[in-house]
Amino acid sequence: MAKINENFKDLKESYLFSTIAKKVAEFQKENPDKKIIKLGIGDVTRPIPKACVKAMEKAIQEMANSTTFKGYGPEQGYEFLRKAIVENEYKNLGIDIDEVFVSDGAKCDCGNIVDLFSENNKIALTDPVYPVYLDTNVMAGRAGKYIDNKYEKIIYMPLTKENNFIPSLPEEVPDIIYLCFPNNPTGTVLNKEQLKVWVDYAKENHSIIMFDAAYCEFISEKDVPKSIYEIEGAKEVAIEFKSFSKTAGFTGIRCAYAIVPKEVMAYDKNNEKIGLNKLWNRRQCTKFNGVSYITQKGAEAVYTDEGKREVRENIDYYMNNAKIILEGLKAKNIEAYGGVNSPYVWLKTPENMKSWDFFDKLLKEANVVGTPGEGFGPSGEGYFRLTAFGSKENTIEAMERINKNM
Amino acid sequence: MAKINENFKDLKESYLFSTIAKKVAEFQKENPDKKIIKLGIGDVTRPIPKACVKAMEKAIQEMANSTTFKGYGPEQGYEFLRKAIVENEYKNLGIDIDEVFVSDGAKCDCGNIVDLFSENNKIALTDPVYPVYLDTNVMAGRAGKYIDNKYEKIIYMPLTKENNFIPSLPEEVPDIIYLCFPNNPTGTVLNKEQLKVWVDYAKENHSIIMFDAAYCEFISEKDVPKSIYEIEGAKEVAIEFKSFSKTAGFTGIRCAYAIVPKEVMAYDKNNEKIGLNKLWNRRQCTKFNGVSYITQKGAEAVYTDEGKREVRENIDYYMNNAKIILEGLKAKNIEAYGGVNSPYVWLKTPENMKSWDFFDKLLKEANVVGTPGEGFGPSGEGYFRLTAFGSKENTIEAMERINKNM
Repeated sequence: MAKINENFKDLKESYLFSTIAKKVAEFQKENPDKKIIKLGIGDVTRPIPKACVKAMEKAIQEMANSTTFKGYGPEQGYEFLRKAIVENEYKNLGIDIDEVFVSDGAKCDCGNIVDLFSENNKIALTDPVYPVYLDTNVMAGRAGKYIDNKYEKIIYMPLTKENNFIPSLPEEVPDIIYLCFPNNPTGTVLNKEQLKVWVDYAKENHSIIMFDAAYCEFISEKDVPKSIYEIEGAKEVAIEFKSFSKTAGFTGIRCAYAIVPKEVMAYDKNNEKIGLNKLWNRRQCTKFNGVSYITQKGAEAVYTDEGKREVRENIDYYMNNAKIILEGLKAKNIEAYGGVNSPYVWLKTPENMKSWDFFDKLLKEANVVGTPGEGFGPSGEGYFRLTAFGSKENTIEAMERINKNM
Repeated sequence: MAKINENFKDLKESYLFSTIAKKVAEFQKENPDKKIIKLGIGDVTRPIPKACVKAMEKAIQEMANSTTFKGYGPEQGYEFLRKAIVENEYKNLGIDIDEVFVSDGAKCDCGNIVDLFSENNKIALTDPVYPVYLDTNVMAGRAGKYIDNKYEKIIYMPLTKENNFIPSLPEEVPDIIYLCFPNNPTGTVLNKEQLKVWVDYAKENHSIIMFDAAYCEFISEKDVPKSIYEIEGAKEVAIEFKSFSKTAGFTGIRCAYAIVPKEVMAYDKNNEKIGLNKLWNRRQCTKFNGVSYITQKGAEAVYTDEGKREVRENIDYYMNNAKIILEGLKAKNIEAYGGVNSPYVWLKTPENMKSWDFFDKLLKEANVVGTPGEGFGPSGEGYFRLTAFGSKENTIEAMERINKNM
């Protein structure tokens, strides 16, 4: 008799985006003449760079010709792309191409990396948080039961205005620590000194940091690290996840990569050190078959002069939207965070409104859709996320409506 | 202190293809004038159909334009592709589009599906076998220790000439049964009656069949099912994996799909039935972000009239190679199996030679490379795999050399 993984029963159904969609549809039905502006999505809207288009068209032609056809590629990614990543993202940081693993998404990498670890590892997460870190650990049996809005075995590390969105070192020592900076959903960052505290802590406690740097290209301030490997010692304790999704607009094309340095070690039951690079390589070779050659050629083109210029233009476009949002909120005396090194603006709801009440008010009075902070974790209650991924025109209009009608 | 998944330590290093590569390189170095022909690979060599090329070029243009740009797609795959799969692969078999999950590879699906099940499920595999089924279950802790060429907890079901490559029902009842037909590596098949035995057995014992049908398009005989759902009752017990890799030449483009019927049930610890369709959907939504829009548009084009014609031409080309191999072996009185409904020919080594001895002999005397059967499992000893994925010219020359020199 085939038995299921019981941990799946501990997963909480996520109604966040389906509830939003339902509320928006109902409002639109009752108010068919209103034009609703959506600033809730975390997905890009600008087309992919022309440099990538050209490279992918060329790659398709190679696949159409028997002399240049490519079958299975390396599970770790083609060397041309791994080399481009090392040279452009990790210059002078000492990352080797054998430490770069190309994949079809940072979500997949964050989800699959849990395969490498014992069920008994203690997990620490910032709160609010991107739900994938939590849900994948629930599936792997590391979360326990869901009681009073929290999983009993998870260490929640609040990110709120009270601690300036800087997580405190937890009382109980975690084995695996998820950090995402620039943060989704708060849009806040850690500077080098603040991140070093975590690297030192992980070294001291033999913990592993899972560092999600998917939004690093949005960083504009100088003291904010674009990679955790800018911090001394990080290569011994940190795995980093990056993606072409939010920079080159690859959310529909699927390309990302994980950096697993050879120095990063975990322990077996006899307390022998085991290198995670070799373990991840084995996992990927066994359960994954590499990324489309066409996609990898497109990703490589991100690092051409033309590609870099176009990516920069897209990011500047989104960051101008973030500025418009921040200025609009300031004009209404609404406290807001993020939006400087990140496409996400995290606002404190006026008069301590509940996240969902603010959602309803914003929809009704300004016909603007955002995301209630409570959907990202208990410490997100009383906050609200707006994103810079819309069009400039819609972003301006949304802020004008908020200014006039709320 | 971060602890590893101890099960990784039970993985046996696979030296099969690296040993082959090493032996070939050494031989070539010592014999620089010899032209070596490789009939060992399981990868396609023919370019992708023009219909797919055109569809992908068009999709890239859509991604290059802000009005037609696509961001994140559905984790389950776009409806246009799922619909095309249902209409073309499952006509009159009662499969619903909600039961189709598009992915980036059958290897990934076979590897990831183990997430849904309890560690304690008993696994049955045919022997020899595609190594992914075994290794992913080793990682998940279902295999136990490797003793005397076998994992202690795995049920091995031999496929040999003695049983006409038809697996016998095992003595101990497994919870999960992996079946791959047309089989890799033996190239043999089960007819409908023979497959029905397994469906009935699984129903009786509440077991799940993982049916790998990646090679179904190579089937030429009428009584051989192209899908397990041609067998009555299979929708209650079987998950099926199919791929565009070997049919449309997508090994470097990455597109496959799993069918998880809503009727397929496993059990929780209280013996309550749990639908695997919902569980797989949750797994995919949490750990996967869908397949490239460009790739999915290419896959859809496989089902156009032009696409079907081109796929058929490619398959006919490979199957003509298989015929050349079978005839060549017959001329030398070498027993051979498969090659009629499959691109794989499985030969019995002459005079009961060991697989690796035959490999050395073939390389030395005919300068032809194949794959030793022993690399696919203990019952593969004394067998050898040749594949039809080379060029026609090379296949003819390889068989001529075998005829003259061995």
